[in-house]
Amino acid sequence: MAVVKLFGTWLSPYVYRVIWALKLKGIPYEYIEEDFSNKSPLLLQYNPIHKKIPVLLHDGKPICESTVILRYIDEIWPQNPLLPADPYDRAVALFWIKFADDKSHLLSKLYRTEGEEQEAVVKEWLEMLKAMEEHALIGGKRFFGGDEINMVDIAFCMVAHWLGLIEDFAGLKIFEPHKFPRVSSWIQNFKSVPVIKDNLPDTDKMLGLLKHRREMLRSKSN
Amino acid sequence: MAVVKLFGTWLSPYVYRVIWALKLKGIPYEYIEEDFSNKSPLLLQYNPIHKKIPVLLHDGKPICESTVILRYIDEIWPQNPLLPADPYDRAVALFWIKFADDKSHLLSKLYRTEGEEQEAVVKEWLEMLKAMEEHALIGGKRFFGGDEINMVDIAFCMVAHWLGLIEDFAGLKIFEPHKFPRVSSWIQNFKSVPVIKDNLPDTDKMLGLLKHRREMLRSKSN
Repeated sequence: MAVVKLFGTWLSPYVYRVIWALKLKGIPYEYIEEDFSNKSPLLLQYNPIHKKIPVLLHDGKPICESTVILRYIDEIWPQNPLLPADPYDRAVALFWIKFADDKSHLLSKLYRTEGEEQEAVVKEWLEMLKAMEEHALIGGKRFFGGDEINMVDIAFCMVAHWLGLIEDFAGLKIFEPHKFPRVSSWIQNFKSVPVIKDNLPDTDKMLGLLKHRREMLRSKSN
Repeated sequence: MAVVKLFGTWLSPYVYRVIWALKLKGIPYEYIEEDFSNKSPLLLQYNPIHKKIPVLLHDGKPICESTVILRYIDEIWPQNPLLPADPYDRAVALFWIKFADDKSHLLSKLYRTEGEEQEAVVKEWLEMLKAMEEHALIGGKRFFGGDEINMVDIAFCMVAHWLGLIEDFAGLKIFEPHKFPRVSSWIQNFKSVPVIKDNLPDTDKMLGLLKHRREMLRSKSN
């Protein structure tokens, strides 16, 4: 049987995308925790362009970029498909996956900015939530693709879990459930899926690390 | 027969990606030129999230985002495939397509910036060219995927044609062929493909428009 290895860090939403996909497919894998501050020679060898996690190693061959890894996993292991079978529905799913991916930078921007700059980031978050609410989650669906979780839900994981953490950390309130009722229901549905619920980073540990990082950044800039 | 329509503007590299893919597949289509300064109600209806071209309309259903459109075209019309058949090779191709797409913003940044800010953009261009030269075009290939043009070549069209135009316009020299011999050969190979050669925006018209836009931007900022 082919050997599957995943290089990640315990708090990255990009890594959780891959963990969930592998678990939804029932694929056993070896997980290798990378050190942010001291990247391993293997990581640099497998992802020489971006030098970033996640990297999936399948039969000794590396695949980089979380959304590319998700597509690969779905093609190699077709059970519990993560994309719709119909080509048009698949194109719509890929549109939203790209949308989610293109907005991912907004997460770290939230706690790395202040004042007017942060206000602009918050505005972008609200536009993103509005697009999800008014265009992607219409029609009374439990998930983006209908009754089952798929790759679009996984791609939007930042909104379901990481945003709330950053809000707590930064003392912001961006996501107000009554303003985005469909997104709010979707978050509940998403986090009630056993594979998701049972595989999320520890909140206290994450808040502790964010505080540590902020102090590091501030001491550097002083 | 299904009706295929393409909403675009005559100078956009994102639109040319779609034009080339349709022509490589031999798919007849109706082209609708959009006005940058006065977007049509149809465009806003078909792409309510980004309000941008290109939009492909197939059997009345809209598909947005050039790389999503390319995937859709390749699935609907399988002749002259634009992605490798092997799942791992396909993942590598998708990695580079995402890489090219994530760098696309560097094009307009080149002529919208000055001084130190422009120097940072030039540095990013050089890093991109280095990655193409040292990682993507190795092994004596004519194109990114081997002997035939594929979706990766199409995705990198900015480098093959638009960069040179912006260099002329901005009085910059970023791409020096002797520093990137593989990229240089690839550009020649790419632009010798009849579908590419016969379908490129007019250089003089493009330079004229860029000058006009710059004047507009300057008069606004004064």
